[in-house]
Amino acid sequence: MEKIRIGILGATSYTGNELIRLLAFHPNAEIVCVSSQSYASKRICDIYPELKGIFDGILLAPDAVSSVAMDCLFSCLPHAVSAELLIPFIEKGIRVIDLSADFRLKDPVTYKTWYMHEHPSPEYLEQAVFGLPERYRNAIATASILANPGCYVTSILLPLLPLFETIGKSIDWIIADSKSGVSGAGRTLKLVSHFVEANENCSAYSVGHTHRHTPEIEQELSFAARRPVSITFSPHLLPINRGILSTIYIHTRESAQTCKEIVAEAYANEPFIRMREASDMPRIAGVAHTNYCDMAFAGGGSEIQPVIAISAIDNLLKGASGQAVQNMNIMFGLSETAGLLR
Amino acid sequence: MEKIRIGILGATSYTGNELIRLLAFHPNAEIVCVSSQSYASKRICDIYPELKGIFDGILLAPDAVSSVAMDCLFSCLPHAVSAELLIPFIEKGIRVIDLSADFRLKDPVTYKTWYMHEHPSPEYLEQAVFGLPERYRNAIATASILANPGCYVTSILLPLLPLFETIGKSIDWIIADSKSGVSGAGRTLKLVSHFVEANENCSAYSVGHTHRHTPEIEQELSFAARRPVSITFSPHLLPINRGILSTIYIHTRESAQTCKEIVAEAYANEPFIRMREASDMPRIAGVAHTNYCDMAFAGGGSEIQPVIAISAIDNLLKGASGQAVQNMNIMFGLSETAGLLR
Amino acid sequence: MEKIRIGILGATSYTGNELIRLLAFHPNAEIVCVSSQSYASKRICDIYPELKGIFDGILLAPDAVSSVAMDCLFSCLPHAVSAELLIPFIEKGIRVIDLSADFRLKDPVTYKTWYMHEHPSPEYLEQAVFGLPERYRNAIATASILANPGCYVTSILLPLLPLFETIGKSIDWIIADSKSGVSGAGRTLKLVSHFVEANENCSAYSVGHTHRHTPEIEQELSFAARRPVSITFSPHLLPINRGILSTIYIHTRESAQTCKEIVAEAYANEPFIRMREASDMPRIAGVAHTNYCDMAFAGGGSEIQPVIAISAIDNLLKGASGQAVQNMNIMFGLSETAGLLR
Amino acid sequence: MEKIRIGILGATSYTGNELIRLLAFHPNAEIVCVSSQSYASKRICDIYPELKGIFDGILLAPDAVSSVAMDCLFSCLPHAVSAELLIPFIEKGIRVIDLSADFRLKDPVTYKTWYMHEHPSPEYLEQAVFGLPERYRNAIATASILANPGCYVTSILLPLLPLFETIGKSIDWIIADSKSGVSGAGRTLKLVSHFVEANENCSAYSVGHTHRHTPEIEQELSFAARRPVSITFSPHLLPINRGILSTIYIHTRESAQTCKEIVAEAYANEPFIRMREASDMPRIAGVAHTNYCDMAFAGGGSEIQPVIAISAIDNLLKGASGQAVQNMNIMFGLSETAGLLR
Repeated sequence: MEKIRIGILGATSYTGNELIRLLAFHPNAEIVCVSSQSYASKRICDIYPELKGIFDGILLAPDAVSSVAMDCLFSCLPHAVSAELLIPFIEKGIRVIDLSADFRLKDPVTYKTWYMHEHPSPEYLEQAVFGLPERYRNAIATASILANPGCYVTSILLPLLPLFETIGKSIDWIIADSKSGVSGAGRTLKLVSHFVEANENCSAYSVGHTHRHTPEIEQELSFAARRPVSITFSPHLLPINRGILSTIYIHTRESAQTCKEIVAEAYANEPFIRMREASDMPRIAGVAHTNYCDMAFAGGGSEIQPVIAISAIDNLLKGASGQAVQNMNIMFGLSETAGLLR
Repeated sequence: MEKIRIGILGATSYTGNELIRLLAFHPNAEIVCVSSQSYASKRICDIYPELKGIFDGILLAPDAVSSVAMDCLFSCLPHAVSAELLIPFIEKGIRVIDLSADFRLKDPVTYKTWYMHEHPSPEYLEQAVFGLPERYRNAIATASILANPGCYVTSILLPLLPLFETIGKSIDWIIADSKSGVSGAGRTLKLVSHFVEANENCSAYSVGHTHRHTPEIEQELSFAARRPVSITFSPHLLPINRGILSTIYIHTRESAQTCKEIVAEAYANEPFIRMREASDMPRIAGVAHTNYCDMAFAGGGSEIQPVIAISAIDNLLKGASGQAVQNMNIMFGLSETAGLLR
Repeated sequence: MEKIRIGILGATSYTGNELIRLLAFHPNAEIVCVSSQSYASKRICDIYPELKGIFDGILLAPDAVSSVAMDCLFSCLPHAVSAELLIPFIEKGIRVIDLSADFRLKDPVTYKTWYMHEHPSPEYLEQAVFGLPERYRNAIATASILANPGCYVTSILLPLLPLFETIGKSIDWIIADSKSGVSGAGRTLKLVSHFVEANENCSAYSVGHTHRHTPEIEQELSFAARRPVSITFSPHLLPINRGILSTIYIHTRESAQTCKEIVAEAYANEPFIRMREASDMPRIAGVAHTNYCDMAFAGGGSEIQPVIAISAIDNLLKGASGQAVQNMNIMFGLSETAGLLR
Repeated sequence: MEKIRIGILGATSYTGNELIRLLAFHPNAEIVCVSSQSYASKRICDIYPELKGIFDGILLAPDAVSSVAMDCLFSCLPHAVSAELLIPFIEKGIRVIDLSADFRLKDPVTYKTWYMHEHPSPEYLEQAVFGLPERYRNAIATASILANPGCYVTSILLPLLPLFETIGKSIDWIIADSKSGVSGAGRTLKLVSHFVEANENCSAYSVGHTHRHTPEIEQELSFAARRPVSITFSPHLLPINRGILSTIYIHTRESAQTCKEIVAEAYANEPFIRMREASDMPRIAGVAHTNYCDMAFAGGGSEIQPVIAISAIDNLLKGASGQAVQNMNIMFGLSETAGLLR
């Protein structure tokens, strides 16, 4: 079988680095170009020395990418820039996988509210597919524009979607208290990511319905529940490199056991979902460097005690580049786990 | 002024080590004996080499402590053992400060429910004073038995007590999602505290109304609200040495601003409470190695969005040994901040 | 091709866990049994929950292993125990890969000096092959007993062996100052591996010709130099999970550039050696979770300034389980990199 | 007694922050002004929220400092800038304590060689006193310009100086392999200090007689030995906030025991030096957050094995701001430990 030819925009981001490593060892894919505005004409392994011997390609300027023949283009660019640079490729019929937020929200008004600028290509929102394989596998298979979900979003939606689909009416409110490693803040230098500031520390940020992952979560929960759903989402910064733990409080009349059974059934055949017991709670270390999402249910049992869902993912893999490759595998008819087992 | 003569039981625990360091430099206190079952007759600086030159005392066996003349005895022993060893000293009229849970709960039935054994000395529960200076300062001043609060408990009660006192009727439920450093699990060897297991990790434990700090929190909130209060409390383990961050979801009709004003007014003269803005959230690194509790309020503003209180303390200081010294200062008529500013 | 049938003794150690993960995804190997004294009859994923869905085998008692048909047996047992349990398998003609120190030293007297007991099977020392592929690839291919090198040893020998082979006479002395992550100390509970003790810390241990990896290093350097070689080796503990950085001071008349050229030439075709520039020094993070050894040369240039070799490996991969799989690949005629690229 | 009036230039650096915390609680000092080019007119606790309630002063522009009456001015500015801004204060007779390198080297040619620009005020080099109290206590007492030593420098000189003074002739060469926490790299944003880059990592930098602390070390060793001394110095970056561990290889005919006795005698009355046994090696965690330097001696015992000195300090305290306060105490006739015991 011929290998799928891959391009990567924004290749020097953490998610770009992770994509390169995954795809360099992928049995059915071949990276044909990597691109970067800031580092054009350098070798990627000058930026990420750990890639030496794994992938030694030269970074192209974004302009130069259009002349490269490819089957699939990943974008690790920031929002707004991402959609703009992807449009010509979409128009040429190249299938794109966008790790930014640009194609995740169906409503351009919501997009503008949260991202503070007009959507650069609202006409493409309809055809974009939200890339959560556990929910949209069939649509993903034929997607031309794949909107890869946010990292927090993935950790929160995976345990909740089967519940909102089945017992959504019984759920009064949701609080997601999420904890993320520092790579989630990207490679850009900022004080909050300075080692001395982040180490031996933990803090909340963007609390109170202000974090940009909120509308994605609400959109998908609303779709599943077939009614508008609001959530409370509180992200926290952990002094670790990678991983997200979400502790999700679900006010419902159902028991934790019932919730667990619903979710376990929905995910019975999922290759990257692992149900855990309350005695063996999801831990970030249990999923780091893998594409798994581990989850468990606890609590409940009285009017006043919420059911508690706990989920863990690697923010750079199941929360970003791993899920992007999982989506690519589905889009191109490959084994869904190809290149992702390790 | 003569120095207060101090004894410390269980001196080789992390809280014992911290007490020794605080009291060795305290202007009005003198450690006259330190004791340990396991390490009796060793020097404390053989156990904690960092104490060399700071406090070089020999560890006595617990039996030998009774013959030492002292004014105040701290216990860093585990629950049950602590009350048993303290009783003879209480009976001799020595004022005791117990860092274990033994004298915190007023109801011996609740104690038995959570600690799975009869309380060793229920007759003393009534006279014991719950050592949260911000709430019980007057009673602490004359206490003979001081029950030093739990670490999680302190981080959760401090932002909540003024609210339950004033607008307690408007509060429907409370969820406290707390994150603690590993020293909270003590110095005893266990897999969960092994470096390789705890590092680059985060996990929840004892979720769903099962952690032993729960009844303390509920007791004090109920006293403040003058009605029974239940909470949902989820502790998490952070890969840091010290510090607790509590993110507390408060379902109330009041705004975050109102909550903040109530609490700020209640604590206007407190030396160890610092109110923070939503733009300058409490962080563990901001309170580590100090006796401060930092707190802020955010969220709220709609029927469905809870007010969010965030508090940060050092679990070994304001959450244990620092608060114990603060209590000692009050009990012995010293400046409340003596030995605690650093 | 039929898969090589693999057994693993001591499977619940960190190196065992790592072997399982590598072999579970190895294209040409199949784990047919895992064994543990302490956890016999439990599932390995009860001990390592992160293996759930990756390898769900039951742990056999060591006795039960002998009845399992296999082609290759790995031992992750401690020294002395390892040789004893391996002997019956060796006698049955099963090829063994021993991650302990038991078959590394050729001289049983040296073994006794450093390990404080008689060697359990000195008659097998001669035929055992020291498993450093970069030096003994041919002998490894036909080895029946493979002695997998120590982790520190690997990081120190790899940059030095080509030098001792070629310019060994010009080298007066060697000091290796090595820094290792905590997983090197194993999963056994001890205070030095307690999170609170190891975190935010760094310390030297076993300095002054006392660490048990010393004789292995001296044996191999002496073989290469064809004269007795002594070294100074100082291990240090780093607050990280995995990885070793060795800073090696080489007193020689040759320049760093000459040293680099000799080593680069020797390793020109090695799949897991990466030469680095002084401007792009080996870093632990650059090799963690891989089987690479990165190395660079600096310093020198005057009578008094030693040449400085710096090398980095993942102690659990190139320093243990990865190298063991690399050796297995060679022993069984597979691609040397099979299962090791990631 | 009236308090010494203190000014601090460059107050928003990590060493500035540490100085403020030390001096805010110092019994005999009062901070009368803090200054910053970049943050002038902000409050220092806007930059360091943890200082809230400890020191709430407004940052002056550097120009504005000259009109403030003070007794002692600390500079935490970068080299070159530091000397330039300090000169007018020196000329007005204000005693200055410079934490930069500007007044450490006696020879302006050496300064130019290592710092790549002319010294801004070579005429003051002679009168500047190198602020290592253990060596220059008498001169410090009357110093008008105090050159506070570098952090690595302090950790290396303290164990070596008594040896070079007494048995300097027997020492052939010195290799100092030093490991430092990230705060040593300052608060300026750079990739090497990004959490994700520094965490779970360790690397060498500036190896091979290139680090700017080298000439300071060589100058002071040469003074002690009364002959030119060269060293090999290799700094490494550790994934911790604070602390330096130096492992120092000393080629000498003397034994480790002899070395230890010489040093122990020299430091018998030093308040901040702690001699340790080989069984109780200096650890960074044992000195972090204190002004102590712990040291031990091991190794030696044969022609070929060097004596190994190991020392540990907190780079921000004994390696910078703590030592600066110790120097201030000496300069102003205070108790040398005032404000430094904790």
